[in-house]
Amino acid sequence: MDNLSLLTDFYELTMMQGYYFSGKKEEVVFDYFIRKNPFKNGYTIFAGLEPFLTQLDKIQFRKEEIDYLKNTGLFKPDFLNFLEGFSFEGDIYAMREGDIVFPNEPVVRVHGSLMEAQLIESLLLNFLNFQSLIATKTGRILQSAGDKPVLEFGLRRAQGKDGALSAARASFIGGIAATSNTLAGKLYNIPAKGTMAHSWVMSFETELESFREYARIYPENCILLVDTYDTLKSGVPNAIKVFKELQKNDIHNFGIRLDSGDLEYLSKKSREMMDKEGCQEAKIYASSELDEHIVEELEDKNSPIDAWGIGTKLVTANPDPALSGVYKLVAKKSGNDFQPVIKVSNNPVKMTNPGVKNVMRFYDSENKMKADLIFDENEEEELQARIKENDRIRFHHPSIEYAHFDMTNYKTTRKMLNQVVKNGKVLAAEKDLNKLQDYCRDQRESIHSTHKRFLHPHIYKVSLSTRLNTMKKRLIEEYKRDETF
Amino acid sequence: MDNLSLLTDFYELTMMQGYYFSGKKEEVVFDYFIRKNPFKNGYTIFAGLEPFLTQLDKIQFRKEEIDYLKNTGLFKPDFLNFLEGFSFEGDIYAMREGDIVFPNEPVVRVHGSLMEAQLIESLLLNFLNFQSLIATKTGRILQSAGDKPVLEFGLRRAQGKDGALSAARASFIGGIAATSNTLAGKLYNIPAKGTMAHSWVMSFETELESFREYARIYPENCILLVDTYDTLKSGVPNAIKVFKELQKNDIHNFGIRLDSGDLEYLSKKSREMMDKEGCQEAKIYASSELDEHIVEELEDKNSPIDAWGIGTKLVTANPDPALSGVYKLVAKKSGNDFQPVIKVSNNPVKMTNPGVKNVMRFYDSENKMKADLIFDENEEEELQARIKENDRIRFHHPSIEYAHFDMTNYKTTRKMLNQVVKNGKVLAAEKDLNKLQDYCRDQRESIHSTHKRFLHPHIYKVSLSTRLNTMKKRLIEEYKRDETF
Repeated sequence: MDNLSLLTDFYELTMMQGYYFSGKKEEVVFDYFIRKNPFKNGYTIFAGLEPFLTQLDKIQFRKEEIDYLKNTGLFKPDFLNFLEGFSFEGDIYAMREGDIVFPNEPVVRVHGSLMEAQLIESLLLNFLNFQSLIATKTGRILQSAGDKPVLEFGLRRAQGKDGALSAARASFIGGIAATSNTLAGKLYNIPAKGTMAHSWVMSFETELESFREYARIYPENCILLVDTYDTLKSGVPNAIKVFKELQKNDIHNFGIRLDSGDLEYLSKKSREMMDKEGCQEAKIYASSELDEHIVEELEDKNSPIDAWGIGTKLVTANPDPALSGVYKLVAKKSGNDFQPVIKVSNNPVKMTNPGVKNVMRFYDSENKMKADLIFDENEEEELQARIKENDRIRFHHPSIEYAHFDMTNYKTTRKMLNQVVKNGKVLAAEKDLNKLQDYCRDQRESIHSTHKRFLHPHIYKVSLSTRLNTMKKRLIEEYKRDETF
Repeated sequence: MDNLSLLTDFYELTMMQGYYFSGKKEEVVFDYFIRKNPFKNGYTIFAGLEPFLTQLDKIQFRKEEIDYLKNTGLFKPDFLNFLEGFSFEGDIYAMREGDIVFPNEPVVRVHGSLMEAQLIESLLLNFLNFQSLIATKTGRILQSAGDKPVLEFGLRRAQGKDGALSAARASFIGGIAATSNTLAGKLYNIPAKGTMAHSWVMSFETELESFREYARIYPENCILLVDTYDTLKSGVPNAIKVFKELQKNDIHNFGIRLDSGDLEYLSKKSREMMDKEGCQEAKIYASSELDEHIVEELEDKNSPIDAWGIGTKLVTANPDPALSGVYKLVAKKSGNDFQPVIKVSNNPVKMTNPGVKNVMRFYDSENKMKADLIFDENEEEELQARIKENDRIRFHHPSIEYAHFDMTNYKTTRKMLNQVVKNGKVLAAEKDLNKLQDYCRDQRESIHSTHKRFLHPHIYKVSLSTRLNTMKKRLIEEYKRDETF
């Protein structure tokens, strides 16, 4: 399973063989971009790159893969021989994991032969779509939770084992404090946490006995689950008895977890009961089918909850369980130059942006993101010169003809796509998730608050340079003239 | 990654160590059951058992897992020594993959020591919840598609690599004809299919050239994607040209795929155009963000679509991406007998059904399922005797006191849970997915049509035997009397 060369849509392989026998060896460029932000959010957090690159590096067709393909009856010996020696040898340019990205701008750009660029499509989409989706969901939850720690508890309802593991990784980049998933803790070197379930409490004759026994074994990590029988009549009073016993031994790292019922009411009542009995240091954890909306509501009501455990709705990205990322051919080499190509559509927002492109992000004097400009790689020098002079720069709406504006008053800029793979060799892929989490936090802080609203967020502008805009219009006109294709 | 001993919530391990140091070695019983059907459906299809059992068999704590746990600082040498020799040695009783299951009835029953039964909770839930969810979604889609083949195309938007692989497996059990996921095809020995994407068409100078070239290489498997430029003005006319060329060579296994636009309009127009040109044998495949509701609508309008390709919404179970399956302690051994335990709750539907139970399914004379009776394992002989005499049998509503009825007029019955693991050894787990698909089809056919409605399906009755009902009431009374726990 470590070699994912066959984790690809079957049509990638039939097309590859087709290219092989059609003698199509030209270099091409594909863009990965998202069509829209999930959850009607104002932004998307990019994640999944390093695991994708790690797998890309391992792609090879061994005897067992070749035998499988041979047995389908569709693949010919010459092509199978070619596959035996195959590895990805192209170039990849990408934004960084933890970057904030927006619809219709290139996030990853793949240069390679048609065959190799085609083969990796499904793998790339599978890895980047899911992890970006979960990192984005995490960003929303953290907005609601403010500075309070959020723990990821989703393993039991995740979409398969990797649905759980990849979600733990992506949500850590997005900013969670810990995961309940032990294997994720080990694989990704992130904190794994957990204390007790209802079955612990039920396995003892009384709730009090179960709490006492837990405190005896884990005096320094004593979070008691108080809702097995009755939270306020039994759970909290029993917890207080145990906390007082811990206090006598000068141990103060304890708390309760609420896992059902009305969390506003129960957290306020529990806080009151514990404070009255001198257990001010007791923390309150809350879990129970939470999402960013419930957390926001409970925070608005000043519920005295110290940490949030969020499972199912985080790791399955409820109610929007898939990200609309796509991978589209945007240029092919003809002679020494890349010729832009476009997928036209009766729906203007479904037209791709043609050509070999990069993205320049413009920041204001408070280091907040102002807008993104998609530009042609060939115009970078000219663009950088204008930026150096702080010249005004025209931004064109990607599909509405008359909509454009001039960017002025920007403080800094950043070129977003940088090379991460050269001739098939991975140049740069940060593996340290703590660094990625820090990086992502900085990026999230650079989003203007208007883009962070849950309801109708302000749409962040992603525009085309004048040169790209002119080229796109020209290509559309050409397709319109020639209706026979 | 082949050993998933750490794919467990961290609290399972802290509780395990707790049981270890509390000397709690008694045998217990946990039930896996779902709380409600996903998608407001009338039933759930059970899947994921064989992969779970396969992983269960491999669970062991090797040096690397032990070292990881040691480094957390929470686990003591004695317990870690115990883990080094650990393997699951309990018994498991389960329904079969492909079985139709309903809320609140035991689907899997685990007997083991507290420690081993606790450890496997997260693994069991992760595997069974997701695959059952996807099999159920597939059942709904097949209802809409009638006898037409449905292909699973979800890899690129699935929740991680295993989200894709497990979904392919579960949807095949549920009844899909093929998957686009090549690795799933290889791993599970199910058909993998695919032809071309837009990039194939765009990589050629003209659409016609791309179609001709495809037909040259794959004359016997020529499904042409016709919506790259303009479906009716360009795609279908070019496809017809190529089909006529194939017909001249007496090749007739061709068709088109519609991947955007109004599928009713386009399928009807395309059919008309192809028929008029003598291409009656051309098949029409449709894909494009489909789900059971769109398929139902298009079928109702007699859209001439021959096969459905369904991706994202199938493999991510949109709009209900998690199944509510839970794993609850229901009995613990005391002396030679099991003592039933209950998790009480202010919400009666959240109370568990206590005791060591099985399920008897009652069928009518047309082999349709009538209702399920949950009974105490100890009353099986008595129950079977009554069934043999075709006696009337009382069915009690699991939470409403006065609601009961007498089952009469049943033709056959089936005991649903059978032993699949004995002393840690897997006894029976069907691996052949074709057999599971056939079995599941039979089960789906035994559901009365009123339970299959998408809107407000008739609720299938799952009841308690008189003995269980009496025992449950007694336990609730006991908890009520003793409020201090």
